Amino acid sequence: MGKTTPPRRADAERNIAAILATATRLLSADPGASVAEIAKAAGVGRVTLYGHFPSRESLVDAVLERAVDQAEQVLSGLDLDGLPAAEALERLVTSSWEILDRHSRLFVAADRALPGERIRERHSGPLARVERLIGRGRDEGAFRTDLPLSWLVSTFLAVLHTAAGEIEAGRLPREEAAGVLTETLRSLLVTQ
Amino acid sequence: MGKTTPPRRADAERNIAAILATATRLLSADPGASVAEIAKAAGVGRVTLYGHFPSRESLVDAVLERAVDQAEQVLSGLDLDGLPAAEALERLVTSSWEILDRHSRLFVAADRALPGERIRERHSGPLARVERLIGRGRDEGAFRTDLPLSWLVSTFLAVLHTAAGEIEAGRLPREEAAGVLTETLRSLLVTQ
Repeated sequence: MGKTTPPRRADAERNIAAILATATRLLSADPGASVAEIAKAAGVGRVTLYGHFPSRESLVDAVLERAVDQAEQVLSGLDLDGLPAAEALERLVTSSWEILDRHSRLFVAADRALPGERIRERHSGPLARVERLIGRGRDEGAFRTDLPLSWLVSTFLAVLHTAAGEIEAGRLPREEAAGVLTETLRSLLVTQ
Repeated sequence: MGKTTPPRRADAERNIAAILATATRLLSADPGASVAEIAKAAGVGRVTLYGHFPSRESLVDAVLERAVDQAEQVLSGLDLDGLPAAEALERLVTSSWEILDRHSRLFVAADRALPGERIRERHSGPLARVERLIGRGRDEGAFRTDLPLSWLVSTFLAVLHTAAGEIEAGRLPREEAAGVLTETLRSLLVTQ
């Protein structure tokens, strides 16, 4: 190793970045894209790809992690604290959906390749944001308190997830999704 | 073949029945149960099992199909038509949950092994029942009409599915699930 280690590591990092960017692009176009297709489009050999991601599942998992990190960067720019909880909810749902919508087939790929609990873990950053907002709405008397907070947070994710699947299955027109989601989550959370 | 075909077919049917019953039992105890464990517990060789179910996915799929068929037999015995829609909803949610609760780890196994869309297809019988009830409630003015019927049906399944996952993850006490589900779906469906 010795002097060769730094360039090798740099090569590896470049390969990983190329694989993840390419996998994101291909899986967003076709949730069933194969590892061989992704390796070819990323310009790396399958052996190199498998060296970094030993299974398709681990590759999809890394793609999901990267997409959620990027989502977190967008969501952290939202100023929710200055808004009443119900308005903040609408803004958070709309922004979350805009991000998810761009990656909705990626989400379908993740749903096929990963256990539901892993998908939830990968969303722990955005879900902590949802949990804070619901908690504040409950404290302010704007949101319901008769159901467990953790349940409302998990249902929030499940409903967003369902919208991605409904669009993919052709049952929900993409342009109706944001409105349907906002109204569904409002009914679920806001005190009647 | 000739005279040997009928007994062979009978053997095959017995093996399939034993495999499916055993797989249901093992996956209900441990959603990660392996094909080898299931074959051993069912008293068949792995080659025999793979002859009927070429992949773990196809086995889990067949187990899910069988469980939903059994659920349909129970649900078809419910008399929902004589009840107001909101009461019928509560009865359908409670009965659906009783069935799902017995199989909740099976549902976790299905979630891990099968695409979400396949799981939805396998539930087409129970979902048709849910769709009829929601449609009737809308006709009677008891349920909301501002969201697409197909969306409400898919969200119904997603919310039940979420409860199974929340129990498995230790975030929702099993004894609270029926009440939480009824209240969640009431908020989602019943006109405020």
